[in-house]
Amino acid sequence: MTQIEYAQKGIATKQIKEVAAKEKRSEEFIMEGLIKGTMVIPKNINHQIEAMGVGKGLKTKVNANIGTSSDIVDINAELLKVKAAIEAKADSIMDLSTGGDLDFFRRKILEESTIVVGNVPIYQAAVEVATREGSIINLTKDYLLKTIEKQAQDGIDYMTLHCGVTQSSLERLIKQRRIEDIVSRGGSFLAVWMLYHEKENPLYEYFDDVLEIIKKYDVTISLGDGFRPGAIADATDRSQIEELIILGELHKKALSVGVQSMIEGPGHVPIDQIITNAKIEEAVCENAPFYVLGPVVTDIAPGYDHITSAIGGALMASYGADMLCYVTKAEHVRLPNPEDVREGVIVTRIAAHAADIAKKIPGAIDWDIEMSKARKDLNWNKMMELSIDPEYVKAQRQSSLPKENDVCTMCGKFCAIKLLNKALRNR
Amino acid sequence: MTQIEYAQKGIATKQIKEVAAKEKRSEEFIMEGLIKGTMVIPKNINHQIEAMGVGKGLKTKVNANIGTSSDIVDINAELLKVKAAIEAKADSIMDLSTGGDLDFFRRKILEESTIVVGNVPIYQAAVEVATREGSIINLTKDYLLKTIEKQAQDGIDYMTLHCGVTQSSLERLIKQRRIEDIVSRGGSFLAVWMLYHEKENPLYEYFDDVLEIIKKYDVTISLGDGFRPGAIADATDRSQIEELIILGELHKKALSVGVQSMIEGPGHVPIDQIITNAKIEEAVCENAPFYVLGPVVTDIAPGYDHITSAIGGALMASYGADMLCYVTKAEHVRLPNPEDVREGVIVTRIAAHAADIAKKIPGAIDWDIEMSKARKDLNWNKMMELSIDPEYVKAQRQSSLPKENDVCTMCGKFCAIKLLNKALRNR
Repeated sequence: MTQIEYAQKGIATKQIKEVAAKEKRSEEFIMEGLIKGTMVIPKNINHQIEAMGVGKGLKTKVNANIGTSSDIVDINAELLKVKAAIEAKADSIMDLSTGGDLDFFRRKILEESTIVVGNVPIYQAAVEVATREGSIINLTKDYLLKTIEKQAQDGIDYMTLHCGVTQSSLERLIKQRRIEDIVSRGGSFLAVWMLYHEKENPLYEYFDDVLEIIKKYDVTISLGDGFRPGAIADATDRSQIEELIILGELHKKALSVGVQSMIEGPGHVPIDQIITNAKIEEAVCENAPFYVLGPVVTDIAPGYDHITSAIGGALMASYGADMLCYVTKAEHVRLPNPEDVREGVIVTRIAAHAADIAKKIPGAIDWDIEMSKARKDLNWNKMMELSIDPEYVKAQRQSSLPKENDVCTMCGKFCAIKLLNKALRNR
Repeated sequence: MTQIEYAQKGIATKQIKEVAAKEKRSEEFIMEGLIKGTMVIPKNINHQIEAMGVGKGLKTKVNANIGTSSDIVDINAELLKVKAAIEAKADSIMDLSTGGDLDFFRRKILEESTIVVGNVPIYQAAVEVATREGSIINLTKDYLLKTIEKQAQDGIDYMTLHCGVTQSSLERLIKQRRIEDIVSRGGSFLAVWMLYHEKENPLYEYFDDVLEIIKKYDVTISLGDGFRPGAIADATDRSQIEELIILGELHKKALSVGVQSMIEGPGHVPIDQIITNAKIEEAVCENAPFYVLGPVVTDIAPGYDHITSAIGGALMASYGADMLCYVTKAEHVRLPNPEDVREGVIVTRIAAHAADIAKKIPGAIDWDIEMSKARKDLNWNKMMELSIDPEYVKAQRQSSLPKENDVCTMCGKFCAIKLLNKALRNR
């Protein structure tokens, strides 16, 4: 039985209890979210982790993408990234490996990770076929479904499946004449295959078979956005929204058979279209959990896309997105390294927390209030303890020590807080 | 005559022409903005710089704060910061020095800067009095006005004057019972003085004299927000808004005598209150140019406040703020160094540009479109050239070169763009 089915029967599983405790919500609240499809608990029955929930009324979660590429295959580096992501307090990692022994890497990562692990099954299926037979177009439906089953057996907690890349939506995409047609790797693999064979996307055509396979392991589907815009000028176009509509239908279908699913979102989106993207997802996907990559809010800042995406992610989550996939500073330039992963998770947690304050997640602002009180008290040890990255800020302060130890070198003895504390004493 | 007065007479000054050319707007558009008080061109008649405009319909500008503190006095470091800010393409710098020979530093900075220079006169007045006579409370109205005149003569283009810290607003602030009473240095100097003497703020009481002094040099007033919230929990409270109302009145008064002014804004503001802050300024200050510090959107990320403020600044500017004061990663921890300045300017320019796309500043999105086309063409040299920080991104790419030189190590040969370009050829 899946978490949805347990909830339907009124049974609070260990995972439901864990999520309720972590979120300071009642078990009933969590069960209701699972039943309505507004919440997921991505946890494969074969993966031993502490559960976390994604969805309406819950804290905004943070995912870190890791994985090899065809150019850089180094399992030790990837395991360092797993470690870096967990230490920086990511809620989830995704193994996006496309180079080397993919079965071995996945199993190793699942073994090492104490947190939720997602992946994109088409990567392994397409890359193995391309490597063995020279081209992605030799991929078969059976090989794809077998790959999904193998990965599910191994314990993958959630899988990105680009089911909304259909013949009709692909035709609309081509008609749209975007600047960047497709920037989703999985979406591009499927589109290349579909254009060549002139056949329907097997993940769409055989969606019922997919549901049957993954349901056995209670794998959550992350309905992928193969047509997420990869350019600000392409954002929120007809092909993106058509795909979203299809994903909304598939979310409902999955829910109807007790399979958990969430919706993936863009991408590259200008600030003024972010609310539209959040609200259209909410509307056409009936409040399905929304999992967004970024969005980056300008195209012109490669090397700084952890920041362009923190801006977009904070805003999108404040309007209702439930999980943010980090974007590191390496995006659009190179494969990230462990330090990029660490920084990417911290920065995305900042965005998620800022959004949680805005959407009034119970307790979110308490952290800020504690910090502000420590500032008022000029209690530097407490400020550093409460910081999102205590070691970093300690080193920063250590590098520039003030003459009087209750202030900092920015204002020195002319610290506004110190002056006011004195002037307002006894008032 | 000030820029306002020239505009009123229908005379397009050299500065009005420069701003019109840079903004790709008509001279009439600029003159109309000056006359209505929705635009300023901060340029002292004694300072030789290329003019830039701040206000409605213009590109969002970026300011970098530099200056010594009582703890760190190093004029060479400050001149390196001037250089770093200009190289990173800041539109303005503010000399916030409070340590060392303040006259010498100001003159040196004015000499070195090819861009607009602002400052906060109360710093020098209060610090000199405190140093000489032991306490800020010995400051006199005459000394403050003399300091303003000296700085204006030297060529300061705009001055932050915390005129809205009045006996009535200060009483309201105390009644409010904030967590952080005052975090503005200038605001705290004035409040300490006013609480001790039980007298009105001289910058408010003698506002007419101030106007008379600075008008001779066409110094723009930046009406400072002494009560800007320094804690998320304090944002948008009654004392902040009372001060803003007073600033709106003073802006109108300045305009009536031909003195340019803009309004300063917060501070620490949660994401959901940013639109409120932008729109209340627009309303009660009758579209006066809005110059905001940050805002940071959470208190818990010292060491990362260049990012918390990029989130808030991008959003505030997208809702109408006209100039962003950067916040560096050193904020809340220590005095920034030249590298912090460089990074702070770049990050704030990213926020400003993302906002300019959202508020549809003519031509803003063209930069992104060019970048997206270079991406589509896998033209890496062009991508790097078009980047906001070309040298940095070149080094990043160089550190991880792909096997095939038209892609990057993130996806290697499985680059979605490359795959689609091939599949869609001839379509």
